[in-house]
Amino acid sequence: MNFPFAAIVGQDEMKLAIQIAAVDPSVGGVLVFGDRGTGKSTAVRALAALLPKMRAVVGCRYGCDPLVATGCDECAARKQGAGVKTHLVPVPVVDLPLGATEDRVVGALDLERALGQGVKAFEPGLLARAHRGFLYIDEVNLLEDHLVDLLIDVAASGENVVEREGLSVRHPARFVLVGSGNPEEGELRPQLLDRFGLSVEVRTPGDIASRVEVVKRRDAFERDPVAFIEAWSKAEAKLRKRIVGARERLPSVAVADAALERAAQLCVALGTDGLRGELTLIRAARALAALEGKAAVGDAQLRRVAPSALRHRLRRNPLDDAGSGVRVERALVEIFGA
Amino acid sequence: MNFPFAAIVGQDEMKLAIQIAAVDPSVGGVLVFGDRGTGKSTAVRALAALLPKMRAVVGCRYGCDPLVATGCDECAARKQGAGVKTHLVPVPVVDLPLGATEDRVVGALDLERALGQGVKAFEPGLLARAHRGFLYIDEVNLLEDHLVDLLIDVAASGENVVEREGLSVRHPARFVLVGSGNPEEGELRPQLLDRFGLSVEVRTPGDIASRVEVVKRRDAFERDPVAFIEAWSKAEAKLRKRIVGARERLPSVAVADAALERAAQLCVALGTDGLRGELTLIRAARALAALEGKAAVGDAQLRRVAPSALRHRLRRNPLDDAGSGVRVERALVEIFGA
Amino acid sequence: MNFPFAAIVGQDEMKLAIQIAAVDPSVGGVLVFGDRGTGKSTAVRALAALLPKMRAVVGCRYGCDPLVATGCDECAARKQGAGVKTHLVPVPVVDLPLGATEDRVVGALDLERALGQGVKAFEPGLLARAHRGFLYIDEVNLLEDHLVDLLIDVAASGENVVEREGLSVRHPARFVLVGSGNPEEGELRPQLLDRFGLSVEVRTPGDIASRVEVVKRRDAFERDPVAFIEAWSKAEAKLRKRIVGARERLPSVAVADAALERAAQLCVALGTDGLRGELTLIRAARALAALEGKAAVGDAQLRRVAPSALRHRLRRNPLDDAGSGVRVERALVEIFGA
Amino acid sequence: MNFPFAAIVGQDEMKLAIQIAAVDPSVGGVLVFGDRGTGKSTAVRALAALLPKMRAVVGCRYGCDPLVATGCDECAARKQGAGVKTHLVPVPVVDLPLGATEDRVVGALDLERALGQGVKAFEPGLLARAHRGFLYIDEVNLLEDHLVDLLIDVAASGENVVEREGLSVRHPARFVLVGSGNPEEGELRPQLLDRFGLSVEVRTPGDIASRVEVVKRRDAFERDPVAFIEAWSKAEAKLRKRIVGARERLPSVAVADAALERAAQLCVALGTDGLRGELTLIRAARALAALEGKAAVGDAQLRRVAPSALRHRLRRNPLDDAGSGVRVERALVEIFGA
Amino acid sequence: MNFPFAAIVGQDEMKLAIQIAAVDPSVGGVLVFGDRGTGKSTAVRALAALLPKMRAVVGCRYGCDPLVATGCDECAARKQGAGVKTHLVPVPVVDLPLGATEDRVVGALDLERALGQGVKAFEPGLLARAHRGFLYIDEVNLLEDHLVDLLIDVAASGENVVEREGLSVRHPARFVLVGSGNPEEGELRPQLLDRFGLSVEVRTPGDIASRVEVVKRRDAFERDPVAFIEAWSKAEAKLRKRIVGARERLPSVAVADAALERAAQLCVALGTDGLRGELTLIRAARALAALEGKAAVGDAQLRRVAPSALRHRLRRNPLDDAGSGVRVERALVEIFGA
Amino acid sequence: MNFPFAAIVGQDEMKLAIQIAAVDPSVGGVLVFGDRGTGKSTAVRALAALLPKMRAVVGCRYGCDPLVATGCDECAARKQGAGVKTHLVPVPVVDLPLGATEDRVVGALDLERALGQGVKAFEPGLLARAHRGFLYIDEVNLLEDHLVDLLIDVAASGENVVEREGLSVRHPARFVLVGSGNPEEGELRPQLLDRFGLSVEVRTPGDIASRVEVVKRRDAFERDPVAFIEAWSKAEAKLRKRIVGARERLPSVAVADAALERAAQLCVALGTDGLRGELTLIRAARALAALEGKAAVGDAQLRRVAPSALRHRLRRNPLDDAGSGVRVERALVEIFGA
Repeated sequence: MNFPFAAIVGQDEMKLAIQIAAVDPSVGGVLVFGDRGTGKSTAVRALAALLPKMRAVVGCRYGCDPLVATGCDECAARKQGAGVKTHLVPVPVVDLPLGATEDRVVGALDLERALGQGVKAFEPGLLARAHRGFLYIDEVNLLEDHLVDLLIDVAASGENVVEREGLSVRHPARFVLVGSGNPEEGELRPQLLDRFGLSVEVRTPGDIASRVEVVKRRDAFERDPVAFIEAWSKAEAKLRKRIVGARERLPSVAVADAALERAAQLCVALGTDGLRGELTLIRAARALAALEGKAAVGDAQLRRVAPSALRHRLRRNPLDDAGSGVRVERALVEIFGA
Repeated sequence: MNFPFAAIVGQDEMKLAIQIAAVDPSVGGVLVFGDRGTGKSTAVRALAALLPKMRAVVGCRYGCDPLVATGCDECAARKQGAGVKTHLVPVPVVDLPLGATEDRVVGALDLERALGQGVKAFEPGLLARAHRGFLYIDEVNLLEDHLVDLLIDVAASGENVVEREGLSVRHPARFVLVGSGNPEEGELRPQLLDRFGLSVEVRTPGDIASRVEVVKRRDAFERDPVAFIEAWSKAEAKLRKRIVGARERLPSVAVADAALERAAQLCVALGTDGLRGELTLIRAARALAALEGKAAVGDAQLRRVAPSALRHRLRRNPLDDAGSGVRVERALVEIFGA
Repeated sequence: MNFPFAAIVGQDEMKLAIQIAAVDPSVGGVLVFGDRGTGKSTAVRALAALLPKMRAVVGCRYGCDPLVATGCDECAARKQGAGVKTHLVPVPVVDLPLGATEDRVVGALDLERALGQGVKAFEPGLLARAHRGFLYIDEVNLLEDHLVDLLIDVAASGENVVEREGLSVRHPARFVLVGSGNPEEGELRPQLLDRFGLSVEVRTPGDIASRVEVVKRRDAFERDPVAFIEAWSKAEAKLRKRIVGARERLPSVAVADAALERAAQLCVALGTDGLRGELTLIRAARALAALEGKAAVGDAQLRRVAPSALRHRLRRNPLDDAGSGVRVERALVEIFGA
Repeated sequence: MNFPFAAIVGQDEMKLAIQIAAVDPSVGGVLVFGDRGTGKSTAVRALAALLPKMRAVVGCRYGCDPLVATGCDECAARKQGAGVKTHLVPVPVVDLPLGATEDRVVGALDLERALGQGVKAFEPGLLARAHRGFLYIDEVNLLEDHLVDLLIDVAASGENVVEREGLSVRHPARFVLVGSGNPEEGELRPQLLDRFGLSVEVRTPGDIASRVEVVKRRDAFERDPVAFIEAWSKAEAKLRKRIVGARERLPSVAVADAALERAAQLCVALGTDGLRGELTLIRAARALAALEGKAAVGDAQLRRVAPSALRHRLRRNPLDDAGSGVRVERALVEIFGA
Repeated sequence: MNFPFAAIVGQDEMKLAIQIAAVDPSVGGVLVFGDRGTGKSTAVRALAALLPKMRAVVGCRYGCDPLVATGCDECAARKQGAGVKTHLVPVPVVDLPLGATEDRVVGALDLERALGQGVKAFEPGLLARAHRGFLYIDEVNLLEDHLVDLLIDVAASGENVVEREGLSVRHPARFVLVGSGNPEEGELRPQLLDRFGLSVEVRTPGDIASRVEVVKRRDAFERDPVAFIEAWSKAEAKLRKRIVGARERLPSVAVADAALERAAQLCVALGTDGLRGELTLIRAARALAALEGKAAVGDAQLRRVAPSALRHRLRRNPLDDAGSGVRVERALVEIFGA
Repeated sequence: MNFPFAAIVGQDEMKLAIQIAAVDPSVGGVLVFGDRGTGKSTAVRALAALLPKMRAVVGCRYGCDPLVATGCDECAARKQGAGVKTHLVPVPVVDLPLGATEDRVVGALDLERALGQGVKAFEPGLLARAHRGFLYIDEVNLLEDHLVDLLIDVAASGENVVEREGLSVRHPARFVLVGSGNPEEGELRPQLLDRFGLSVEVRTPGDIASRVEVVKRRDAFERDPVAFIEAWSKAEAKLRKRIVGARERLPSVAVADAALERAAQLCVALGTDGLRGELTLIRAARALAALEGKAAVGDAQLRRVAPSALRHRLRRNPLDDAGSGVRVERALVEIFGA
């Protein structure tokens, strides 16, 4: 049983970023920096549990969506839509353990059986299990670079391709990557940072009331989870409805040239490398507009998501020792006014 | 034959922390820092020997409790309660040797037999042996990070999941993790420190009388263990009764809002990251209240367990070179009065 | 579906270098330095998609050209030209993933089958797949030296030779090597740098209009790729015609002694080691002349390609802290006039 | 043939320490620091050869004592005492070579045979061979920490437990650990130092007469070992009688409270961590009293063994650059008078 | 098709050193230091192509010379001279790739087949292929020391001995070792340097005319290799005749005591370690005399080859920061006059 | 064919040390420091070739001496002396290649065959081949410590014991260890240095006449080895007679107490650790007396061998920067007079 998303105290930026990624996974993964013990993993699990169950093909090892054409080979071979048996499954959240081998992550091709018996003996890995859900990496900064690279590539392409000595297997693997990291324990290379869509910072709440509230809710949940979940079920239903609605509204949200120019001005002012920052900023603002039920992206949306979209793409400025969050805020004031 | 827990001279903080963990394992593991040769391993072994024997399913490789639903798969398959044969077994204490492989710790899945003969050939590891007891790690700071991580994860979830190439085995593994460390020989990462519930410091006694007493008792024990144990049996029985009683009283001990606020004030004053400190503080104080036969957590309990619950969660403060123990004491005086 | 090459905004030096390599692959590979997120991989993929499909032998694992004598052994065994079945295939772009093993790159010889069954059991690798196309290496500076060495050797010789314990397999592997690198993250050894034909620097565009244009085009493409590609099809056709024409004109473009002397003067002025710089400069200028429809190489061509051909071959000059691009420009002004 | 122990010139501290360990192995191992070429290995071998042969069970792979209950499993299975065949065997001295694998040290479990044939196929290692004798480690400071740890654990528990994938074998392994080390070539961790019972320092003799004597005896021994051994046989017999007598007297030697207090005062004055120092000091003094035929431990015995028992347990004192030997001597004078 | 040796512009010292090694391989290998892109590999290949084809035994895996007694075991078993079938084969040039395994270099002994079927299953390696020709190592300074050692040992003894677990295979492997190195990228140990016979330095030509000539010839060669080779065939034939003649004249070239003394004086003046320098100097001068058609070694020959023979054997002189080439020149002037 | 020992120019200290080791191998190995290219390996090979052939048992894999009782197991099983077939074999010189595995050095036990077929399948290694001869290690300072340790242990005990998983094979391996090292390329640990008996320094001869003589002899030998060996055969015979005579005289050479005292005074003056230096000094002086036909060891012999016996056993003296050779000489003058 999961702690209700709605019952999480504070941490608004993190909660918004995960919701945006749930509305439009194409914003890219979410990187969560900050204090330990602030419920990062709890939040991801809670949001996944909040989302409506997904319809999946019975017997499909990847939990393919029966309504989508780009399923796995086996689903493609099944008669689509009509005669396929389906069931409802919860949105998966998969943990990537430190020290996981590449085989365990991408899946293992049993070459001997493949060669000997002519069978493609593929054992799906964690990426397969994460399909249509979330892949959570605690302390992503401790992972090997090439594995982070691989994960981002798969998350970006929505497809996992495993090749071993001439054999190859591919299956859909569309998921939201959520990584947590403690900036005090080693950093990600700028190349990798840039490939995450959003980044958020979480802090331990500083006011007594919030802290007592967190501990009380946590204690109440652990003493009697059933009653606690019941108490929060209405708030959860409201949130679920908002996200489902936003997903439907997303394609129709407009992005005017003025918004694009605002985004560009902001990135130029901040000197971000490349244009991934701008693209992410626009997409995240659009998803936020969808959540808020707006017809078009406006300054309000750009302003609210800009720190998450840009904070991790700033070059270090040796003459300006302000944190990157502060630098984004200053640029926002400069461009959008105070 | 084990040295009696009651006969251990001094080391009150360590003895209390182990008792608290025995009353409420959900406080998390215990980390023991300090001088070598101060009987850390002896104390854990002594407490386990003091506890009443546990009823276990005959033939179960994990020593499952016949009265608990969340046993291993094989016990779940057996008819529960009625026709199952049970026996009494001592509370296990398992040593994790430096250099143990992951397979030896979590257990080994024999993939060849599994694939060839369709049998889940699982060889339980040290975690299985520690189920319902204690896992002792000498010099935990010398262990590889990912193994410490894994041990804390299992201890927190109470379940060991072994996955190899698509096969997976899970079995209950609820135990109290006790780690000893010498701060002079390398440190644990703050991330890992924070995941231990309590920490205590032990010192070699400085007064002659205590030292002579330790050596005399040790000598007497080794010369004639049977007579020594007999001499201490009454004190042992009293201690055993106190712990067993505390376990029964625990669910009914109250925690008022005022106590939660005290805990929060203390943690804010100390600037601990996250809220694990507060949760542990509350739980440990509740277990202490149960040991003392109190109906509710009061200042006295919070005050007594605060150093153990918080000492290892302080950030290093470059402007304050007092030890973390001293800093906790100062905050206690500030919040609770001198 | 690929983003159209013609729709790429700016980045003229990179676009020219890839076109030159497509016209005359003997200039050697292209090294792209610069900011992340500037569409390096997109550009290579776009150019390959722009090029006319290639006629290939049906059933050939290397996609051999039916009109060229130097095909693979199996094609050599087939009756050439007449009775061989052919089809049209797209120009391949192969990604070399970080952490790829040598076996995966060059192909794997199955020694057991070879010895046991007398069959040359060769499983072609990434080099085979790149034949007649492009091999793209992201962050080439993170690759192991001996692998870069091997790739450059194969690219230079147009042939991949795999030898294992007395067995050897060889197959054609003519491709354009394109490597990207971030100079901030480790450098290539000068020995390896020198073996790349051209190098270009890419920067994030600094003007708002360009940036908005990039984001708009990207957004339009992703929202409706079919319509976007249709809109750019005329521009693409024009570019395709220019490249195909240049390939035909190339053998007849003249290089006068005066041009050779100019090239030599420039290299002497810059103090480049060896003569690879001069050879590349001449070849690149010739390919540019072919693209521009000129009958002979003139100063204009030398001048335009010199930075790409020479920039990465300069020794570090401790008394001159100007970038290598600036130093090439100064030498150009000195030799060719302002 | 071994050089006679009685013929060793000088090195009194080392000779005493080995004799004490032979009288009461529970003092723990002996660590010998000092110059190379001072006959450390020779002394251990000589003492073992001096000791009376041991009665052992015929056919037992561990050389079990027929009179002791805690033998190996096979001896436990044999009818004890009466019908078992026994013979006399020399006290073993086993060398642990640098670079020995763990399997070779602890013994090897043949898992395949064990699983296939249901037989516990255990190949005893060096620890089995050392049972009831001496294990000599030259340059113990060059051994890996986890191996030293393991050796000390076995020496302390008197039992070797080998566990591999669920199988386990245990056999008695009671031996005196003697390690030699050159402090100039790397140090043992304090944790490990503390676990050795006694430490001694050896030096090359500085006076001509001693040196000539050493060389002459060595030369005489090598030219005609039989005659040399014969010449020293009386002195050897006397020594043997003294050690055998001390073993018998040991249980009846008294340790008064005053002696315990002296030991504690000394350790407090020296600031040794933990209480292993005191325990060892008392035990070594008791063994010395037994060698000397005294009825109780007195100041004389404490004083004589204190340097060996405590020297290696001192913390480094940055304000006192005297060697640890000197510091022990100063504390002795302080406590016992000059 | 190879670029003609005679068409190589400049680089006289390198060209002479390779010719000397071709005339008398006992001078030892040639080490080529210097700028990248200066045609080192081209020159070796060109000289090998220039040399007359060699007569070899048909079916011999080592290409043994039918007229020489010291062939491989199989040739020794064949009837020598008379009934053996022979053919003409080109002089081999073998490249040693960076990262080649020892097995690939020396050849692989298939122990399983050897033990199972009683057959010496030896798979010849690169050394076998280089027999009677050249072994070229690019960037020899990046090779592991023990491999360089092994290569020099084989080159010096003319025989490759492969031993694995009691089996041994030996075959002739007489070749000229040519190594190239860039002194900026790590150095060879003096021990290894000393074992190379000659060393030469190559530089990029600095004058425009030479550079244009190099590029023109290279371009002409690549555009129409057949015509280019034809144009240079006369010059090639002349060179070939000179080398073949020198090989015949070599045994009769005299070395007077005066020449030996000159060589010794030079080496003493330079302070070279050991006497390999003098031996090489004498041999190289003799080979040069043979190339020049002289009857005896004179000052002119010693003088010309001294830099190549001695430059790499000088100790570093901290008081003299002149390059080693300059120091050799100064000593030459001192001994032979200006 | 080997260069004659008698024809070696100069290098008297090295030549004497090898002769002493050949007369009395119990002095321990010889360590040769110094310039490269000074004929160290040549000298060992030459001395071995000079020694009379040894009588060995036909069919014995270790070349056992038929007259010595301590042969290998197989020779022990054969009827000794009478019916055993013998032949004459040259004294072996075995090279230990850098990078040799331990298996290759000590021999390989084929465990599978041993267990399966009950046969001790031992494949003798380099140590077996060196039995009764010389083991030469070039650049011993580059060998791994544990291998050097092992070699010295075997050389000292005269026996090679190979143990693998409970099986053990032992065979005689009496040889003289000769190691060469360049002090500029890494040093041996003092522990290992001390275990070599003698050390010598070799230098390139500095006078022209010697150098010319070396080169001339070397040249003459290589041009016509048969004639050269013939020319030196008389000198060789004389040397052989001297060594054979010394071996016979050795047991009867006397060592008076005065000589022992002299040796001790010298070692005390030099502050050598341990007493190996004195023992070696006495033994080497005795072997020299035997070579010179003296009845007893006198000052002359001690004086001549002292540098070789002691030079490598001096501690570094930070206040005395004279080389160790100079320090030995000063002590000799002090003790024996100028």
